[in-house]
Amino acid sequence: MSVQPTRADKFSFGLWTVGWQARDPFGDATRAPLDPVEAVHKLSELGAYGLTFHDDDLVPFGSDSATRDDHIGRFRKALDETGMVVPMVTTNLFTHPVFKDGGFTSNDRSVRRYALRKVLRNLDLAAELGAQTFVMWGGREGAEYDHAKDVRAALDRYKEAVDLLGQYVIDQGYGLRFAIEPKPNEPRGDILLPTVGHALAFISNLAHPELVGLNPEVGHEQMAGLNFAHGIAQALWHGKLFHIDLNGQRGIKFDQDLVFGHGDLLNSFALVDLLENGGPAGGPAYEGPRHFDYKPSRTEDYTGVWESAKANMKMYLLLKERAAAFRADPEVQEALADARVVELSTPTLNEGETYQDLLADRSAFEDFDPDAAGERGYGFVRLNQLAAEHALGAR
Amino acid sequence: MSVQPTRADKFSFGLWTVGWQARDPFGDATRAPLDPVEAVHKLSELGAYGLTFHDDDLVPFGSDSATRDDHIGRFRKALDETGMVVPMVTTNLFTHPVFKDGGFTSNDRSVRRYALRKVLRNLDLAAELGAQTFVMWGGREGAEYDHAKDVRAALDRYKEAVDLLGQYVIDQGYGLRFAIEPKPNEPRGDILLPTVGHALAFISNLAHPELVGLNPEVGHEQMAGLNFAHGIAQALWHGKLFHIDLNGQRGIKFDQDLVFGHGDLLNSFALVDLLENGGPAGGPAYEGPRHFDYKPSRTEDYTGVWESAKANMKMYLLLKERAAAFRADPEVQEALADARVVELSTPTLNEGETYQDLLADRSAFEDFDPDAAGERGYGFVRLNQLAAEHALGAR
Amino acid sequence: MSVQPTRADKFSFGLWTVGWQARDPFGDATRAPLDPVEAVHKLSELGAYGLTFHDDDLVPFGSDSATRDDHIGRFRKALDETGMVVPMVTTNLFTHPVFKDGGFTSNDRSVRRYALRKVLRNLDLAAELGAQTFVMWGGREGAEYDHAKDVRAALDRYKEAVDLLGQYVIDQGYGLRFAIEPKPNEPRGDILLPTVGHALAFISNLAHPELVGLNPEVGHEQMAGLNFAHGIAQALWHGKLFHIDLNGQRGIKFDQDLVFGHGDLLNSFALVDLLENGGPAGGPAYEGPRHFDYKPSRTEDYTGVWESAKANMKMYLLLKERAAAFRADPEVQEALADARVVELSTPTLNEGETYQDLLADRSAFEDFDPDAAGERGYGFVRLNQLAAEHALGAR
Amino acid sequence: MSVQPTRADKFSFGLWTVGWQARDPFGDATRAPLDPVEAVHKLSELGAYGLTFHDDDLVPFGSDSATRDDHIGRFRKALDETGMVVPMVTTNLFTHPVFKDGGFTSNDRSVRRYALRKVLRNLDLAAELGAQTFVMWGGREGAEYDHAKDVRAALDRYKEAVDLLGQYVIDQGYGLRFAIEPKPNEPRGDILLPTVGHALAFISNLAHPELVGLNPEVGHEQMAGLNFAHGIAQALWHGKLFHIDLNGQRGIKFDQDLVFGHGDLLNSFALVDLLENGGPAGGPAYEGPRHFDYKPSRTEDYTGVWESAKANMKMYLLLKERAAAFRADPEVQEALADARVVELSTPTLNEGETYQDLLADRSAFEDFDPDAAGERGYGFVRLNQLAAEHALGAR
Repeated sequence: MSVQPTRADKFSFGLWTVGWQARDPFGDATRAPLDPVEAVHKLSELGAYGLTFHDDDLVPFGSDSATRDDHIGRFRKALDETGMVVPMVTTNLFTHPVFKDGGFTSNDRSVRRYALRKVLRNLDLAAELGAQTFVMWGGREGAEYDHAKDVRAALDRYKEAVDLLGQYVIDQGYGLRFAIEPKPNEPRGDILLPTVGHALAFISNLAHPELVGLNPEVGHEQMAGLNFAHGIAQALWHGKLFHIDLNGQRGIKFDQDLVFGHGDLLNSFALVDLLENGGPAGGPAYEGPRHFDYKPSRTEDYTGVWESAKANMKMYLLLKERAAAFRADPEVQEALADARVVELSTPTLNEGETYQDLLADRSAFEDFDPDAAGERGYGFVRLNQLAAEHALGAR
Repeated sequence: MSVQPTRADKFSFGLWTVGWQARDPFGDATRAPLDPVEAVHKLSELGAYGLTFHDDDLVPFGSDSATRDDHIGRFRKALDETGMVVPMVTTNLFTHPVFKDGGFTSNDRSVRRYALRKVLRNLDLAAELGAQTFVMWGGREGAEYDHAKDVRAALDRYKEAVDLLGQYVIDQGYGLRFAIEPKPNEPRGDILLPTVGHALAFISNLAHPELVGLNPEVGHEQMAGLNFAHGIAQALWHGKLFHIDLNGQRGIKFDQDLVFGHGDLLNSFALVDLLENGGPAGGPAYEGPRHFDYKPSRTEDYTGVWESAKANMKMYLLLKERAAAFRADPEVQEALADARVVELSTPTLNEGETYQDLLADRSAFEDFDPDAAGERGYGFVRLNQLAAEHALGAR
Repeated sequence: MSVQPTRADKFSFGLWTVGWQARDPFGDATRAPLDPVEAVHKLSELGAYGLTFHDDDLVPFGSDSATRDDHIGRFRKALDETGMVVPMVTTNLFTHPVFKDGGFTSNDRSVRRYALRKVLRNLDLAAELGAQTFVMWGGREGAEYDHAKDVRAALDRYKEAVDLLGQYVIDQGYGLRFAIEPKPNEPRGDILLPTVGHALAFISNLAHPELVGLNPEVGHEQMAGLNFAHGIAQALWHGKLFHIDLNGQRGIKFDQDLVFGHGDLLNSFALVDLLENGGPAGGPAYEGPRHFDYKPSRTEDYTGVWESAKANMKMYLLLKERAAAFRADPEVQEALADARVVELSTPTLNEGETYQDLLADRSAFEDFDPDAAGERGYGFVRLNQLAAEHALGAR
Repeated sequence: MSVQPTRADKFSFGLWTVGWQARDPFGDATRAPLDPVEAVHKLSELGAYGLTFHDDDLVPFGSDSATRDDHIGRFRKALDETGMVVPMVTTNLFTHPVFKDGGFTSNDRSVRRYALRKVLRNLDLAAELGAQTFVMWGGREGAEYDHAKDVRAALDRYKEAVDLLGQYVIDQGYGLRFAIEPKPNEPRGDILLPTVGHALAFISNLAHPELVGLNPEVGHEQMAGLNFAHGIAQALWHGKLFHIDLNGQRGIKFDQDLVFGHGDLLNSFALVDLLENGGPAGGPAYEGPRHFDYKPSRTEDYTGVWESAKANMKMYLLLKERAAAFRADPEVQEALADARVVELSTPTLNEGETYQDLLADRSAFEDFDPDAAGERGYGFVRLNQLAAEHALGAR
């Protein structure tokens, strides 16, 4: 196995990642703007297969049609020259002041209508560029103050928006699927659909749930102290892992957007194992782009930017290599069996067994010895130590 | 409005709350056991209308049938004497070592079968006592280590269990509904269905989703840094607020189970306003028991226990009083209008409007001035200050 | 007692607070720049007594001397016209890219020298404007990556810088004192001197510890999940509460800089009680400016900005009023006695008692009954309920 | 280098770690008690060199003198047989109900006197067993409620206690040093001296600061979201790293006490590098015991307990091996130089330079080009990637 990225690895980057100028809440930009055309060429050289963007990353907000066409034309040319693809497109409903109280769920109805129009226009561009996935990060859909937002009304409006967009995509035959990206907070004090779970629940209430899935981001779930690999597993269980944002976060704090693997390394290892090997049940569990949504640190110049882009891909490939070795190790297999991890795939009831049968089974209750069962060890620490040693390349 | 609790307020307490002996991870019990019969009488005197319990709160684990009947009989007698009701019952699948890797999702299949039997038995008791809600807190359903639990298999088993129990309740004609209680962690490193959102999503995949809702707990959502009032609003939006656990928590840390209102006071105010007044949309949003799931601090003797029980009810009633005044204040109404909070209830599309119509509406996009719209202030801080002043009784 | 602010209340605001244009990591400015002269006049009208600033708030970075003098002159004139004072000045070592790895502790020595020069120049201005306190927030002194910063060397450089500045102030006879403002993270992944405790410890190692104290900020300590009132009490214990930054934060997340009291209301109540009434020991504990370091939310226009400025002062005064009533309530006094809060002020040893005496006192150990002592309740919940009721204005 | 532990590695374990019976706030014990004699023999076999204990771990609370002597005698015999040492002893001031409001800072003065006596007695035992360090974890010194504890009075009492104990140790000629172990919360809502910083500051106010240092614990600092390696570096800077508690924690939540390295792996790597290699300045930085204060998970039987004990030592040795390779790699050295990490050890002022000289140096300010300096990249991401690759054994 090689840790040199190839197109088969399906690595993609947001234009806004390598192109981030490093303006933060307490500091001015430290890097000059990056030409999207250069981003395409450079990422192609480094082994990525795809690029993604917000409308405003490619075409400055408020550009006239001619300027817009020009920007898009230059970008398409770069794609053609490199063979890079655009697997995902998204709309910026957060930078401009008009969206300061949100887009789809702004208290101001005229803003909501404007937001819908901005997205509809961008759906056309996404389809035109051959994207399969349209991500919706509702970073401004939320509130700082509990009485400032009627959350139930906001969810009604969110649903109204997504249902309308879904119908549009169906009618246009675009073949696009939507992926909601949850985040608990920042820039709003509290964001609607704050976690993978909340977004999955929301989707189940939509007019076309089959069109809508998730784009979970490592750091966003970790900002709520949640286990990212668990969240991805639940998203997969619902058949809703439509896209993924890989990056690094060091605990519950502001959104760091570090390089993938530069945060919680052991959970990153478990994640790659799940995506590539499907967990104990076998896999792979996910076939889509491995999309990096990170920010090259503000301390870096463009040399550092490209080093950081490479680092994302290398960390993923290293962990993939480690995960393959972990799965192939007979001692790991034995430890998984001892820990009865695989036994969990066996249904609790026998085939055809009813609750009446279960109630009649004295071995399940009357003759079951809970004290004896409570004494049996699960061997989880040994299993975790094996995982850690494989992550460390120490076996 | 009075801050003296009456049965009409529907306040209920878990037997395990006032009965907590104050054993914690670093300390031994500081209080003698409390007789459930005394709990019934005392809480009745204080103004509560109901009591809830885990099977093992009422009948020690492993009791024989005669002992069990005796415990239940004494308890029923106390209920009859006082008129107290049992609106909710739940099963303990976490204290005994047999459940150390969970109940419904233990890697050990025999434990899963035993857990199902324990719950089935307890459903009969719940029905017998007239409970309407059966809570399931899966505090041991989880893992410390990422490779120790196949989360997708665990969700399969969870669903298998809840589907079986649902069928049983339907077949027995029990009229019980289930309420899942999410928690992100503790006692497990990560718990399955960690938030309101994850549990709502899970329910949408069940065989009988109509039978299953939520029992969210203030502190549990706050342990993930989530806004509890927002979570409740989303649960209501899905029609799934079947029960509620009120208490207090001071930020992201171990589960504190403080008195309701002794944690985040402003969010508690927003919560009571939502439950009682339905938010800006009007209406009470929730009609069920106001259930306190808290722990009298380990520093308290029984005088302190009963003081803490009273404090829960008084805090709720005080905030209810404040919320009524908040809603009735014309300046608040004006501030809500200025902040366009109510405007969010107006659909984004006109009646009968299609996306084609929206696309044709130049006022929505081509002639819309985002800069001007971006300059308009929302007045959220003033609104929040009004809320804070009402909470403080300062208007 | 009035909740109308007067100069005697010593309320001050940073120029950068009401002047924040609301640019955040995901959004552009929503407000036009505010003329510092207007800020002086407006805050004076609202009842503040003072204004504070970073050098670059008043004079744009890189201005020539004439421009600088002009800006300062206009500002002084406004101060003269209004009688407003400048109790505190601080230096911006974080916005410009040159400080991207810090000022005093940048890995780049030329940056460190430049930072020192920038601060020295600003000390002259602070003295000229009659400030008593010079705040140092080292928001860029830190790292994202553990091997990128030699923390011990960084502390050496920090000390070198503060020692030099102290000597300068002494030699110039400026009468200024320094106040370090801790923060755990943001904008850096980890910031040096992350909490009140770390900064207090650092000060004890300085050449002139008497010159240096703290400027703790509510939200900064709460971003580490710490109890702000406890931190202030420890700072007071060390005689180091030289200044204070009041604002609001809703838990462990990005730095919210809400209005004071719009975060953890009960802890704000305890804080005001401590500052004004000195806790159970009597007070006041702090005589300096009540300085608001907050950000008017990005959703607000200038009407909202001034509403938010007023809200800070009103919340403080309301809580001060509540704290006075709390202290005056005989039932509170009785509850404090029951909880033995005051007993903690009695030394553990008798006057003149040595450890030999203690060892000889059989009543302390051999004849002491720990079980009996362990049964006594402390009545803390009742006391807290009284505090909550006073905060709510319900007594 | 070997990953097989030897006595030269100075690995020690608390009796309460392998001996933890796995009682948690929601569950009963899953393991039978462990005889301390067996612990000594078993840990000796596994390669540890030392054992530590609380008084009550070795001798049950309330034992009479004969029983006490017997327990101590059996333990000493086991030490003699194995050659194991007792480098540290500590006192349990948290389990018994008498300490429910703390030991040294209980509001109840008689409890404070009792606590002092309990510790004095245990100091004799510590000295008798040849311990060098006496740890003080004040887990019950704190409060749940802001008005229930006068924090300044509590710090007075804390100081009174530590000063008395220090005098005792001096007078007895025991050669013991004290090490305070900070923790932010759990079991109390807020604990006094919550972080490394707060404890360092406290020590500077003691009568004999030279006698008192720290015993920081990985998980405790991480429960406040703080960078543990940074905290250790500051403790070293103050000369106060007297002892260390190694374990694992997965973010801000309840105290997990996982195996060392099973939490934040990259920060553990940085920590071992700092302890063993002293950071960029060279080392080692710490010569004392590598003490594991962890809990074998509740799911484990005694086989799992011993596996977990081994895992702690193996993780440490693996990371030590990785850290040595990291330091020896020329590319790392080059990256450290590029990142100017070592430049931070050069004083900011030239030798003999005064602030007057600095003010006269036009190259430092007037002729310095901040824009050019702001453009230079620091190469921190590349350096971190090299660290991650070394941690992963991928170079």
